[in-house]
Amino acid sequence: MLIDIALDAMGSDKSPDPEIRGAILAARTLGVRVHLVGPERTLRPLLARQMRRAGERRLPIKIVQASEAIGMSEKAAQAVRAKRDSSMRVGLKLAREGTVAGFMTAGNTGAAMATAKMVLGALPGVDRPALVALLPTSSGRPSLLLDVGANVDCDAKNLEQFALMGEIYARSVLKIEKPRVGLLSIGEEEGKGNALTRDAFPLLKQLPIQFLGNVEGRDIYNGNADVVVCDGFIGNVALKASEGLARLVRDSLRESLNSTVKAQVGALLSRKAFNDFKKRLDQSEYGGAPLLGVRGVCIIGHGSSNDRAIMNGIRVAAEFARAGVNAHIERELAWLARPSDPPANP
Amino acid sequence: MLIDIALDAMGSDKSPDPEIRGAILAARTLGVRVHLVGPERTLRPLLARQMRRAGERRLPIKIVQASEAIGMSEKAAQAVRAKRDSSMRVGLKLAREGTVAGFMTAGNTGAAMATAKMVLGALPGVDRPALVALLPTSSGRPSLLLDVGANVDCDAKNLEQFALMGEIYARSVLKIEKPRVGLLSIGEEEGKGNALTRDAFPLLKQLPIQFLGNVEGRDIYNGNADVVVCDGFIGNVALKASEGLARLVRDSLRESLNSTVKAQVGALLSRKAFNDFKKRLDQSEYGGAPLLGVRGVCIIGHGSSNDRAIMNGIRVAAEFARAGVNAHIERELAWLARPSDPPANP
Repeated sequence: MLIDIALDAMGSDKSPDPEIRGAILAARTLGVRVHLVGPERTLRPLLARQMRRAGERRLPIKIVQASEAIGMSEKAAQAVRAKRDSSMRVGLKLAREGTVAGFMTAGNTGAAMATAKMVLGALPGVDRPALVALLPTSSGRPSLLLDVGANVDCDAKNLEQFALMGEIYARSVLKIEKPRVGLLSIGEEEGKGNALTRDAFPLLKQLPIQFLGNVEGRDIYNGNADVVVCDGFIGNVALKASEGLARLVRDSLRESLNSTVKAQVGALLSRKAFNDFKKRLDQSEYGGAPLLGVRGVCIIGHGSSNDRAIMNGIRVAAEFARAGVNAHIERELAWLARPSDPPANP
Repeated sequence: MLIDIALDAMGSDKSPDPEIRGAILAARTLGVRVHLVGPERTLRPLLARQMRRAGERRLPIKIVQASEAIGMSEKAAQAVRAKRDSSMRVGLKLAREGTVAGFMTAGNTGAAMATAKMVLGALPGVDRPALVALLPTSSGRPSLLLDVGANVDCDAKNLEQFALMGEIYARSVLKIEKPRVGLLSIGEEEGKGNALTRDAFPLLKQLPIQFLGNVEGRDIYNGNADVVVCDGFIGNVALKASEGLARLVRDSLRESLNSTVKAQVGALLSRKAFNDFKKRLDQSEYGGAPLLGVRGVCIIGHGSSNDRAIMNGIRVAAEFARAGVNAHIERELAWLARPSDPPANP
């Protein structure tokens, strides 16, 4: 049976082309029906052309009209209030009504989070929904970092909920059997860290999860932890710093390899190796960041998403919905509120 | 005239070899007299051998006896208390007495900071000394990130002092004429960030520095800012995350380039380009992290320092001392305490 996923057609930096091609890839291979949300008059001819190019005549893709789009540089709060017929809002409404099982966008992250919280609302028991980043590690399996931007000035209880939600996601969607969960801090001993991590440590220790204790910044990438929990300010800084460093590395490598003819020949010979290398570190393979704790499925991809990243985002939305992540979260948070009554599947 | 610098001979992971060779390089080229601090019976023959290898007969290097060494994995507070004749403590005492103008170690960072604070004490007006990391940027000029580990749970006044100290260091030692100082946050507008950055913003805005406002994690590496100010928890997480990512990139690249014969040939042809690339991103070129705000000069290098990194650390210590950084800091902090009386050189 097909699963219905709404896709914001106007999200990415180069929208709607990557979205349309990504929708075609997804509809062809993933067993999903894609609801492409955006201005119908623009999308209709583009979709027809890309279908022809792809050699497809019929695919489960439908267009849903939305007259407005929220730009990357728009301020989230303002845009959400002003643009009542944005593709994000219309797509998320489809999810709220149950027309689709999930929503994916590669648009403005702040606006997507704000719209999702407004349209879908939080799950019962969730104080603050959290945005997850999936990051490459040396184990080959991604690590989850949360929260990466939704919430600053968290308290220990927020981090406790993040740990639980992240663990459930890693288990249900990434199929990691016993996800190892770490608390992002400085220094590994229990007493190390700041006031927040010292408060959160005993709470995380009591959860029915495999808790590693404190982990350090490097553990985000070395495969030691599957889920790394932190305040949204820290998570966002760590993520953006990593993006900045990755860009510097890429540019420096490119510049060095262009510096002499010999180096250029060398680069040419190793082209496949470079592509493997890029793919290994490429977040677009993971297909976007889930927003955990809202009453519905919302996946937020990078603005630079290409068709493959869009397809992977749709795949993640479908897997999120199929795995019943939100029912798990609700059940375990209810248990957290009443610890005398343990959940059925701890 | 020679300037005297004490070097912890027992600091780095492979000590004392990198230290001895680094001391030789420094004494030969930098106009410094190196006080090599450690167990004389071990150091004497090694120094003699390395001098012969280097073809040197006389260089301004003297050995200062210290019977103990603090290991990398030792807990700082404990080690500092227990090892009263450690090479760190003896070296820092030379700085306190004025026998040397500065001290450099590639040892245990926590122990070095704790010992420096205990032996040297804080400069008048400094509430908390801060550790600076020098990081590569796309502009080719390093950026300064502080604090990177000395202080968690900072208040706005701490960040104000970090901004001032970092700016003075960038100006006096790195010779950046008008260092651009940013406050590490999420989102660039004044109201964005967490409680701490919102409190600190107006204080930094009033300083006699070129204040950029909020900057984001990526700005650490893109050359937009010369000095990036943050709480020590955030700074440490960002730094360690960057180190983790850099290691992942290096390992992935190496693995990809070893995967086929063609790629290996390519890598061989581009060897010089790879070396350029590595050098461009190599922090050891900057020679270690200054601890700002103590009554003396203390430079802390990476445990993996090689002879070149040690030499650069000694160079930085000498430049720090020659530039009179601490007198600047004292003067400007005194002005900060009494804003009616502006400093002579704002």
